[in-house]
Amino acid sequence: MLIGQVIDTNSAWMAEKLNELGIELYQITSVHDSREHIIAALDEAFGRVDIVLTTGGLGPTKDDITKHVLCDYFGTHLTDDAHVRAHIMQLYKDRPDVLNRLTATQWQVPENAEILENRVGSAPLMVFHHGQQILASMPGVPYEMKIAMEEQILPYIESKVESRKTKDKIIHKTLQVTGIPESSLAILLEEYENSMPESLHLAYLPKDGVIRLRLSSYGGLNEAEMEQWFERLKTLTADYRIADTDEPLEVIVGRLLVQKGQTVASAESCTGGKIAALLSKHPGSSDFYKGSVVAYSNEVKHNVLHVCQQDLDTYGAVSEQVVRQMALGARQVLNTDYAVATSGVAGPSGGTPDKPVGTVWTAVATPDEVYTECFHLGKLREQITDRACTKMLVKLIKLLQ
Amino acid sequence: MLIGQVIDTNSAWMAEKLNELGIELYQITSVHDSREHIIAALDEAFGRVDIVLTTGGLGPTKDDITKHVLCDYFGTHLTDDAHVRAHIMQLYKDRPDVLNRLTATQWQVPENAEILENRVGSAPLMVFHHGQQILASMPGVPYEMKIAMEEQILPYIESKVESRKTKDKIIHKTLQVTGIPESSLAILLEEYENSMPESLHLAYLPKDGVIRLRLSSYGGLNEAEMEQWFERLKTLTADYRIADTDEPLEVIVGRLLVQKGQTVASAESCTGGKIAALLSKHPGSSDFYKGSVVAYSNEVKHNVLHVCQQDLDTYGAVSEQVVRQMALGARQVLNTDYAVATSGVAGPSGGTPDKPVGTVWTAVATPDEVYTECFHLGKLREQITDRACTKMLVKLIKLLQ
Repeated sequence: MLIGQVIDTNSAWMAEKLNELGIELYQITSVHDSREHIIAALDEAFGRVDIVLTTGGLGPTKDDITKHVLCDYFGTHLTDDAHVRAHIMQLYKDRPDVLNRLTATQWQVPENAEILENRVGSAPLMVFHHGQQILASMPGVPYEMKIAMEEQILPYIESKVESRKTKDKIIHKTLQVTGIPESSLAILLEEYENSMPESLHLAYLPKDGVIRLRLSSYGGLNEAEMEQWFERLKTLTADYRIADTDEPLEVIVGRLLVQKGQTVASAESCTGGKIAALLSKHPGSSDFYKGSVVAYSNEVKHNVLHVCQQDLDTYGAVSEQVVRQMALGARQVLNTDYAVATSGVAGPSGGTPDKPVGTVWTAVATPDEVYTECFHLGKLREQITDRACTKMLVKLIKLLQ
Repeated sequence: MLIGQVIDTNSAWMAEKLNELGIELYQITSVHDSREHIIAALDEAFGRVDIVLTTGGLGPTKDDITKHVLCDYFGTHLTDDAHVRAHIMQLYKDRPDVLNRLTATQWQVPENAEILENRVGSAPLMVFHHGQQILASMPGVPYEMKIAMEEQILPYIESKVESRKTKDKIIHKTLQVTGIPESSLAILLEEYENSMPESLHLAYLPKDGVIRLRLSSYGGLNEAEMEQWFERLKTLTADYRIADTDEPLEVIVGRLLVQKGQTVASAESCTGGKIAALLSKHPGSSDFYKGSVVAYSNEVKHNVLHVCQQDLDTYGAVSEQVVRQMALGARQVLNTDYAVATSGVAGPSGGTPDKPVGTVWTAVATPDEVYTECFHLGKLREQITDRACTKMLVKLIKLLQ
């Protein structure tokens, strides 16, 4: 993380799970694989919080030092653990190549730590006690960390810290709006915000043209009171609101389609399959999503989606005429009720005075009609394509609601 | 970040850019939008480093407090800045709805800060001096942060801190291997690692079946010596090495295809467009990538990719027979030299004793042949589909090399 080769996706996931248990995540700290740095971070953390969670540094290779540093920090030493050894032998029973002497160091565990089972990996899950405080150490590989947290660490924490949790639950409720600038939204909500009690907090989370408004209660309000505050927020934002939850937009699209027994497809040029990846991302997506044609070249637009070659030549790929035919073509070829289409200049090259980088033509074909719209979505490739995906999902939600 | 609604992608990007300048990122800290917490983090940071970079909390809404806290911390106050005001008026000249009184607070800046231009947004970029130390504050929106860093903050830092940088450059060199367990790789490299000087560090970064091996020199070695160490590492890993750089696999695939003047397509079931999104992710991808068919339903596999209906019925969608026809179909329909195909059980439901969750059949059609292979890629939906994408890119690299 500290040299930019890895993005920390673990922390956000862990934060969400902890919040669900009513445990506030106080700080996220990323440190070097350095003994001094880890120890300094542990000292600071134990000065702030009841529970310290660490991820990473538990592999068998030389650069992984967490287990050794924790041993020193908690004044203990490593010892072979027969139980962990049996687990690792079983884990790699079909892979004798992995059962080498470095892997054997994985069943050495700190003598004074509680060891929890890591069902899917060889690194031990370790819990240390530091007076009334707890440190839990788990692997950094996201898949392993998630299983460790859900099956072992979270239940453990819940059983041990019940009495120390804040009495009043942390409650978050989120809605999503679009079509209003953040500052205008804040003016619209000014009186509301000024009337909020101390324990209530409103956060504005803008992304790709959608603003998530998160109302958080840190004690003091019960569920019913919180519900009243959230209802007022819903009323005030009615003109711009597209969702009453924090669900990803593609999940909302899926639910609305399943409710109607309808299906969707995409025909993508500049978004290059990103809409397809979103629509197929979550379990159950085959109930409403049938497929996509990523028509990156004009040849594919013509051959597979049957876009008229003359229109491609006359108007260019980034045009109302072409996205309209892409959407209609996808709806017909993939045999769905809805189809969305995108064609734009994602850059960095390819822009013209007429159609600068960021220009994206979009279309949504419904059972009755085709809606087309042109957007200017910024200057950076990733920003442009992400925003185009969001525009399509928002349009689908509006048409389906 | 601390409640899990946002993943921190900024830090990794910033780390990479700082490293390129020879500046070591010492720690990443995420704190609450709380005055006390921000101040505590600043105190700790100034006890550790020369330069503190902060992102976020600069919007016009009530939950954004960074600018106010920094004013207090550095003992200054806000004052209107005519230059920033003119910039914001220009920025929103076509959007009168944004020019409201909250936006007007954006041109209030701390009196003793240097203000750098934020070309794409309304939040001022602020630089504070703290004795010999520097704090630079910038927006948290990734696109704005990146432009701020590249155009303003990094050149500023480079001009100010030249004399304080480590004399010896930080050098990272990375290669990528596959087909060997991490522990076996470490044993293979044991003698090499033991012979490394103190200033050299080897990191193992496994992800989705590929291990990136990063060799880092923190001073003491010149470029030529570093190159020798890296060459030795290349020789030792020759049997498993698929790349001599840290480039994303899809970039390597693209370069190899462009060198040969050839093209690729994908036919995706379980990966649902993720391979398409990777192949089209980077600028210039239209030089080798023509398109994809995401055939999520069997109907699309048959209608668009011409997979034999009887084979779908007999063998099921997740079978060698079907992926072979998907790859051949995509190669023909999309008229490319290469086509990759995936069909698997991504779960969580849909697994059978014969084909449990994680089973993925893959195929690569080349101008001469079709290669098929079945993998078992784990238990979690995202893990399975990510790993399947990696398998396809690795296979393409091997066939193209």
